[in-house]
Amino acid sequence: MIIIMSSSATTAQIARVVERVERDKLDVHISQGEERTIIGVVGDDRHIDRRQYIAYNGVEQVVPILKQYKLVSRVFQAANTTVDVGSATFGTDKIELIAGPGAIESEAQILNIAQTVKALGATVLQGGAFQARSSPYGFQGLGEQALKYLQSAGKEAGLATITAVNATAQVEMIADYVDMLQIGASNTQNYALLKAVGKLKTPVLLRRGKSIKIEELLMAAEYILAEGNPNVILCERGIRTFETYTNNTADINAIPLLKQLSHLPVLFDPSEATGQWNLVTPMALAAVAAGADGLMVQVHSDPQEALSDGAQSLKPDAFAELVTQVRAVAAAVSRQ
Amino acid sequence: MIIIMSSSATTAQIARVVERVERDKLDVHISQGEERTIIGVVGDDRHIDRRQYIAYNGVEQVVPILKQYKLVSRVFQAANTTVDVGSATFGTDKIELIAGPGAIESEAQILNIAQTVKALGATVLQGGAFQARSSPYGFQGLGEQALKYLQSAGKEAGLATITAVNATAQVEMIADYVDMLQIGASNTQNYALLKAVGKLKTPVLLRRGKSIKIEELLMAAEYILAEGNPNVILCERGIRTFETYTNNTADINAIPLLKQLSHLPVLFDPSEATGQWNLVTPMALAAVAAGADGLMVQVHSDPQEALSDGAQSLKPDAFAELVTQVRAVAAAVSRQ
Amino acid sequence: MIIIMSSSATTAQIARVVERVERDKLDVHISQGEERTIIGVVGDDRHIDRRQYIAYNGVEQVVPILKQYKLVSRVFQAANTTVDVGSATFGTDKIELIAGPGAIESEAQILNIAQTVKALGATVLQGGAFQARSSPYGFQGLGEQALKYLQSAGKEAGLATITAVNATAQVEMIADYVDMLQIGASNTQNYALLKAVGKLKTPVLLRRGKSIKIEELLMAAEYILAEGNPNVILCERGIRTFETYTNNTADINAIPLLKQLSHLPVLFDPSEATGQWNLVTPMALAAVAAGADGLMVQVHSDPQEALSDGAQSLKPDAFAELVTQVRAVAAAVSRQ
Amino acid sequence: MIIIMSSSATTAQIARVVERVERDKLDVHISQGEERTIIGVVGDDRHIDRRQYIAYNGVEQVVPILKQYKLVSRVFQAANTTVDVGSATFGTDKIELIAGPGAIESEAQILNIAQTVKALGATVLQGGAFQARSSPYGFQGLGEQALKYLQSAGKEAGLATITAVNATAQVEMIADYVDMLQIGASNTQNYALLKAVGKLKTPVLLRRGKSIKIEELLMAAEYILAEGNPNVILCERGIRTFETYTNNTADINAIPLLKQLSHLPVLFDPSEATGQWNLVTPMALAAVAAGADGLMVQVHSDPQEALSDGAQSLKPDAFAELVTQVRAVAAAVSRQ
Repeated sequence: MIIIMSSSATTAQIARVVERVERDKLDVHISQGEERTIIGVVGDDRHIDRRQYIAYNGVEQVVPILKQYKLVSRVFQAANTTVDVGSATFGTDKIELIAGPGAIESEAQILNIAQTVKALGATVLQGGAFQARSSPYGFQGLGEQALKYLQSAGKEAGLATITAVNATAQVEMIADYVDMLQIGASNTQNYALLKAVGKLKTPVLLRRGKSIKIEELLMAAEYILAEGNPNVILCERGIRTFETYTNNTADINAIPLLKQLSHLPVLFDPSEATGQWNLVTPMALAAVAAGADGLMVQVHSDPQEALSDGAQSLKPDAFAELVTQVRAVAAAVSRQ
Repeated sequence: MIIIMSSSATTAQIARVVERVERDKLDVHISQGEERTIIGVVGDDRHIDRRQYIAYNGVEQVVPILKQYKLVSRVFQAANTTVDVGSATFGTDKIELIAGPGAIESEAQILNIAQTVKALGATVLQGGAFQARSSPYGFQGLGEQALKYLQSAGKEAGLATITAVNATAQVEMIADYVDMLQIGASNTQNYALLKAVGKLKTPVLLRRGKSIKIEELLMAAEYILAEGNPNVILCERGIRTFETYTNNTADINAIPLLKQLSHLPVLFDPSEATGQWNLVTPMALAAVAAGADGLMVQVHSDPQEALSDGAQSLKPDAFAELVTQVRAVAAAVSRQ
Repeated sequence: MIIIMSSSATTAQIARVVERVERDKLDVHISQGEERTIIGVVGDDRHIDRRQYIAYNGVEQVVPILKQYKLVSRVFQAANTTVDVGSATFGTDKIELIAGPGAIESEAQILNIAQTVKALGATVLQGGAFQARSSPYGFQGLGEQALKYLQSAGKEAGLATITAVNATAQVEMIADYVDMLQIGASNTQNYALLKAVGKLKTPVLLRRGKSIKIEELLMAAEYILAEGNPNVILCERGIRTFETYTNNTADINAIPLLKQLSHLPVLFDPSEATGQWNLVTPMALAAVAAGADGLMVQVHSDPQEALSDGAQSLKPDAFAELVTQVRAVAAAVSRQ
Repeated sequence: MIIIMSSSATTAQIARVVERVERDKLDVHISQGEERTIIGVVGDDRHIDRRQYIAYNGVEQVVPILKQYKLVSRVFQAANTTVDVGSATFGTDKIELIAGPGAIESEAQILNIAQTVKALGATVLQGGAFQARSSPYGFQGLGEQALKYLQSAGKEAGLATITAVNATAQVEMIADYVDMLQIGASNTQNYALLKAVGKLKTPVLLRRGKSIKIEELLMAAEYILAEGNPNVILCERGIRTFETYTNNTADINAIPLLKQLSHLPVLFDPSEATGQWNLVTPMALAAVAAGADGLMVQVHSDPQEALSDGAQSLKPDAFAELVTQVRAVAAAVSRQ
């Protein structure tokens, strides 16, 4: 951390800051410029609140040097983390495919989709049981019954399973049914929930919320690792910007950047990131070309009758086409 | 809802959409233009997923006409809702002041601040017990012990109390200690939590998340009212934009707009909305001039030593100055 | 400027950066931490491109210390700049009012509005002659003829005049007709235009573009001052965010912030900043409460028939009401 | 256009709107719902200001149905436009590469880079002569002298040339030196400039500004086509969002979307869209996978010594690697 004092800072103000740094058990390195004093703070300052220093009179700016995250960083662990879920291994050269409907609607629906996506190369089956809907009048999901359908469809089709967990009280119950837990975009900074899934060893797919900075996503992952669960997979699914043509703006920059900054696997969800089924395939290809380790795609046998996310779901034949093209692009960038 | 078919939509496609509308128990009104067909949907369509219609072939655009929210709207209830909390009544001509530290640090600290802000005109005491921190290494709050300090400080100073609730499992426990529950900005769309506080009658202060649209904030409030709790107060605390000089961009437009769209009281938090103590007072005045029903201000006896939010906290004398100026502006816009 | 080397930077890489700093005629102050080397650069580095240093191998981050702007800053000039335009003086305790229609439509229209707003307290008359429209099929303005109408309406009503200049080729011609030049929001970073108006002494109202950071706005003003024209007035008119209920998000935070950072007068345009006439008055009051030096308001005798900006224009009686309320709030914050 | 009247609209208010529609020479189709009246407006309403209707009392919302753009749309012209520039043809199956430095620094520098990028497969040489810098103290470019260097380097290396034009007064002069004109991101809505380049037949590369919506970009292109110049190429170069890790957020969604909405060629600039050289190649691959017709890449022989954009420029060997990988991905999506 570097503390930049204002040009009008007094000696007493500088001294008070120095005293605080020392109280925080860090070393001080003072640089007296012509116009202003700069206080270099030496040592690992991740445990303190750097913004706090702005409260001191005479401080103009506080510049962090160490990243706040540690366990998730490439500096801490150079090699890629791999996460095993059923027959899938995330974080290797192979592009893993998670597919399934927005909402689980019936036993037949999820089984049908499971068999379809399995045949086309998916290794994990997704499906919503407790929907996070912006309207209280929207379809809220079939709840625990849906989890039973998901579990049996996964078994029958030979797919691992994933569903979203939205509340701390549900974590254990849901973890009993599925192979992988999803933290949805509205919960990326739900710290109570992050801590709860951090206490398990079940793999966690952590989705970036629509206004979450890359650094904040990594800090959210740090919460889970700090609790003891190393099996975290990051997922970009679009951010909120001024553009209204698409539901979200896919932040493809984030994919190679996250791969540089962290050792965790990085997925992309082209369904949520666009909101329109006819953009899903080109964006899936873009993500793979940019270095994503896998994709999470909404597939529905009959999107027009879907109870959720029909607008952004692919029909089976469109998903088959996506898989074919993804394989070609993956090969072009030396992946499988 | 109006469904705009593309210029190349076929008769069969139009028929399939009409069939679905009728299945959704709504009436159809077809308008055949030169270039395209427009399907007017008549009736209350709040219970259906309008975006779903985009999944139909031939549909170009779906335009909602009814707002999705109902219970919170001015159309549903023309008169202002008032919410009583201790000696405070939110939603009247009087500007109510909530004040207190970011985090409760000790029994003495919160009692000291309580007495200070009470003397200066605040009617509700705020303080964090379970901090929502972006870093797992940051101060996480004193937990239930802090609630005890808050409760006794409130009693001693004659102030009602408010603290944030972050997890469904904590709702009842926290409600036993305080007069008012706060849903923080990272939980505006934590639907499980909204439903949980909706089941009580305890007043709820619902803060707008940093990427939450005004319509989504109203939908979040709708969740609480739909569960049976009418005592909801909205709070603008800044949104996330490209501007980096300030922590957040205060969306003052939202204040008069929310007052037009809804009957619920609207507060403003100038501490979070700016992130800098020296902008707090001018922004507090701006909010009152624009029609806010009250303010929520971070006050700390010694911001330099605060364990949280020191950079944006006012010292007691600065808070005293804020109160004086707020009273002058309130009088200028015919408020107390 | 502080240059933070990565933890893996070699001695040779550090040496090459130091060599470059010295070539840039600045002094170096090296700080060797446990993990990494930090290079403090001492001296006025405004003439160099700080981002350039990121191109050097081993550099992780470059942190500016000096603001890039100088002439516009409070540090350079502590006292408020005042700008005289006709009977108006911007930058004093008096709230100055600029008012008029989005577009000048006819001689009678602009004269009528001029007399109305003059009677209600405005001191400067605005009106568009060359409209900046997003559609080539929209009304493009009456051009030079409109300038003649504006000039004569201003003279007849006793008001100074302002209009927007959009192209370098027009600067001198337009400056012959009006007392003040406006740089519109789509031209805040049109550097050729900024240089052209900088060569005159005519007062310039510089509007913040919808995606312009506060620092960039100040740099745009610096362009004008650096060319020799000190008569610059800044104007906040809303920024582009994810919120779609309003056309723009009024960044009221920017008003007290700009007053702290710069000695230039700061205005607010509540018409553009909201896009809705029924939010204009509360937002005008908010801006004055927050410290704005004046307002720029769209007024039209018959907004329904306006050729531009009807949705956000006030009728004369609504403008009269705005003026009354602005005076009350101004008095409450010790302004006129 | 559909005009939605508020539920409290009176018969007189509806009549006044209808009268206005008819005055605008459009037909009316009234739909009387239970709660409110909806006025369908039939006919081509691109020539009118739809937002104007909001100024009418009783109007709640105005919904456009026709897109405002026409000439640039796929509906108007189904086949891809191709634009010939020297040996390059934009808009075919071949991925065209524009490459060169941010700024032209000397005759030797631009010639050297020209020969390098030519050898690696580029067909157009870019280089800045009049830099658009946010600081007046930054390097402003060598001006007309740079154009001479660019022209002769292009001739010698056998490359077409492109440079940015920033002011109307320069359009003809610059067009004499280069094969293609670039409208930079700060000028996307500089309508005077758009009209000026629209009067020529020289190909125009129109870059999307950092806060320009996709629809606004298409409207900007419409300005050029409407003036008579059909040779327009669109270029995505990143938008401004809350994310600060990267200079801009590459909006890759925009690439397939623009290809659907318009017949114009679409390029991508991975240098500006990321701001970091180590993200340039993965993002170039992403854009090609998503359907871009070409790339515009900053290349410099010695980025550390570049006078502009060094941080985001590729060295020749990195550019060579980019070209190899781009060819592989292009082949995977059936392009050259």
